[in-house]
Amino acid sequence: MAEKNVPFSKDQIEKIIEKFPTPFHIYDEKAIVANAKRFKKAFEWAPGFKNYFAVKALPNPSIVKLLADEGFGADCSSMAELKICDMVGLSGSDIMFTSNETPEDEYQKAMDQKAIINLDDITHIDFLEKCAGLPETICFRYNPGALKGGNEIIGKPEDAKYGLTREQMIEAYGIMKQKGVKKFGMHTMVASNELNVDYFVETAVILFEMAAEIAEKTGVDLDFINLGGGIGIPYNPEQNEVNLEELGEKIKAKYEEILGSKGLTPSIIFECGRMVTGPYGYLVTRAIHTKSIYKEYIGVDATMANLMRPGMYGSYHHVTVLGKENAAQECTYDIVGSLCENCDKFAIDRKLPAIDKGDIIVIHDTGAHGHAMGFNYNGKLRSAELLLKTDGTAQMIRRAETYDDLFATLKF
Amino acid sequence: MAEKNVPFSKDQIEKIIEKFPTPFHIYDEKAIVANAKRFKKAFEWAPGFKNYFAVKALPNPSIVKLLADEGFGADCSSMAELKICDMVGLSGSDIMFTSNETPEDEYQKAMDQKAIINLDDITHIDFLEKCAGLPETICFRYNPGALKGGNEIIGKPEDAKYGLTREQMIEAYGIMKQKGVKKFGMHTMVASNELNVDYFVETAVILFEMAAEIAEKTGVDLDFINLGGGIGIPYNPEQNEVNLEELGEKIKAKYEEILGSKGLTPSIIFECGRMVTGPYGYLVTRAIHTKSIYKEYIGVDATMANLMRPGMYGSYHHVTVLGKENAAQECTYDIVGSLCENCDKFAIDRKLPAIDKGDIIVIHDTGAHGHAMGFNYNGKLRSAELLLKTDGTAQMIRRAETYDDLFATLKF
Repeated sequence: MAEKNVPFSKDQIEKIIEKFPTPFHIYDEKAIVANAKRFKKAFEWAPGFKNYFAVKALPNPSIVKLLADEGFGADCSSMAELKICDMVGLSGSDIMFTSNETPEDEYQKAMDQKAIINLDDITHIDFLEKCAGLPETICFRYNPGALKGGNEIIGKPEDAKYGLTREQMIEAYGIMKQKGVKKFGMHTMVASNELNVDYFVETAVILFEMAAEIAEKTGVDLDFINLGGGIGIPYNPEQNEVNLEELGEKIKAKYEEILGSKGLTPSIIFECGRMVTGPYGYLVTRAIHTKSIYKEYIGVDATMANLMRPGMYGSYHHVTVLGKENAAQECTYDIVGSLCENCDKFAIDRKLPAIDKGDIIVIHDTGAHGHAMGFNYNGKLRSAELLLKTDGTAQMIRRAETYDDLFATLKF
Repeated sequence: MAEKNVPFSKDQIEKIIEKFPTPFHIYDEKAIVANAKRFKKAFEWAPGFKNYFAVKALPNPSIVKLLADEGFGADCSSMAELKICDMVGLSGSDIMFTSNETPEDEYQKAMDQKAIINLDDITHIDFLEKCAGLPETICFRYNPGALKGGNEIIGKPEDAKYGLTREQMIEAYGIMKQKGVKKFGMHTMVASNELNVDYFVETAVILFEMAAEIAEKTGVDLDFINLGGGIGIPYNPEQNEVNLEELGEKIKAKYEEILGSKGLTPSIIFECGRMVTGPYGYLVTRAIHTKSIYKEYIGVDATMANLMRPGMYGSYHHVTVLGKENAAQECTYDIVGSLCENCDKFAIDRKLPAIDKGDIIVIHDTGAHGHAMGFNYNGKLRSAELLLKTDGTAQMIRRAETYDDLFATLKF
């Protein structure tokens, strides 16, 4: 059972709302830092351990900086995310550039930053060399195909657009060695939002065995293995979070068994985003209407524009009615936004305390893939992002959009 | 069978690309205007016929203006869409404001514009009166509940957050009449992207019978009936477009039978968006990578950020490879964008001619719910929108986003 508390009181959030009107996302600095430290501790056994925060999960430089101060790097998939690294002052081996269908200018930018480049396809060797030259360190993304079962979000690896096949991997390292590349890494990412520890251990085994095979067949001794991201979070209180300590121990055992026994000592890195910040973000919104037709509805001032996951995937996000945490859950509501889309519902048939107009409603676990996935459909504006500092104050780290922003690109 | 041609030659589009780099959406002015005229013609029998273009489908003032010049009004669901009406010079009964979970300032804005207000809930009578006063004309949105089967996109009416129940409708008109409101309308919207003519005829019958009942029970003689939108388009060439002439004739027969026989003569209006512009928009993109692993992939420079429907709903969009319209469809490809999401695929297992890097690829039917639904996930920028003028030139009606736009709201 995952606990679903909020790190602020009703009084505290009401004071924050006086300054920053609802809706907004608020991120808990203290909890994010503590979680980052816990992640590092679980893998302190691993040589050169580093988590590259998946910037796409929460592409706000204030958050990337907070994590950089804890020794995290940045996992980037695009030009915009590379540019965020410039803002934060990250460069070189603190950036992992994992992209696909990459345009020339993005490789050029990554080379300028001396980022670690993770190639998604064997044809990108030539493409990269022609547009930006080759770096000293290169990584390849492995797609194990039918060797590895997928999970619900990413799907079957053999149907995924990412990575190189086993045969291509062997060939690719050989080519790069011949071309004079000095240092090598390997990466895969076959799951998203997965809560089963053994799933990640299996993935590690596949990569460790692949590393041993690469060493044997090409003489390339990998400098690092990027185990990807995909560690899930318990959106539903009935789920359990991934036990990081157990994960660290189990991967350590496989590392020693498969790699250590052969004298191989690659660094272990991850590119987790969701589990780093996801549980520590909250969408704060207000009930503005109640409606009783064939079902009971609570209309709030946030919409799918602020949080896509429930509408897009039907995902569960826990809901807390501030000040009614201990009240009897005697009502069944759909909590809905104002988008002209019937999927604009944060909760469906949810048992909750009786909600009154004006109540502050907190939607949990919006610290990853929350604000980042927002759109402007129906002309809705994306909200502000606040950082709840360790001293209890709120710092605005992104302002809310205005209609001027929305209309900025029009030519009329 | 729907024809899937493109209204430009390869030479023509290459000249346009010299000025406006891919990806972009381009809308066919001539076809949009011709289609608007055809829609009006099919309903010229109906008193006061008007289609209110659903601005959400293509919220670009240049398009709304083009349609206003054809006598179309604007169907708005939000503050932003009401503001677009100001830009275009639409006001009063040329605007239908159909919203839900509406905040105060949006009702105030709609009242300032003298827009027709369509209330989504019986509690909004008081809410509107308190925040903005009552207008001379009011409309209510009817949710027929289990009386009407839903369709795939909107779902069952009894599970939809919209509208008033039958009992609430009768009560609501009575209240408004007592409060001195002079003119009345009724609305429903129970389908989206529906291609079956009879579905709309059934909906009309439900509303016509309801209008007769309201007249009988409350003495309110409706001034207009808004049959909603939801007329679909044949995304797949194997589908057929809705025969507007047949639709017009069938609804006319029911109008005369149910309303005419009682001496009732409400105006007939629609709020179609998709069928007005959808088939006349094209996402133009370029193949930048080819990839061969467990499947064959073509990487293009557009992503889900430019067109969400395939990734979000798994929707089919037809694909044309410019200059290869008549080539043998000898290859099977996934056409993919560069988003770090495996659902970022414009086509899956699609039979197409052999595609080379550099080929221009046209994705059809992006004239509605295309650009409008785009997001900035992964830091991707939304594209420009062009209008293909009747003289064959391209006019930029929205510029592409820049990284300055993307980062404009950051506080770092």
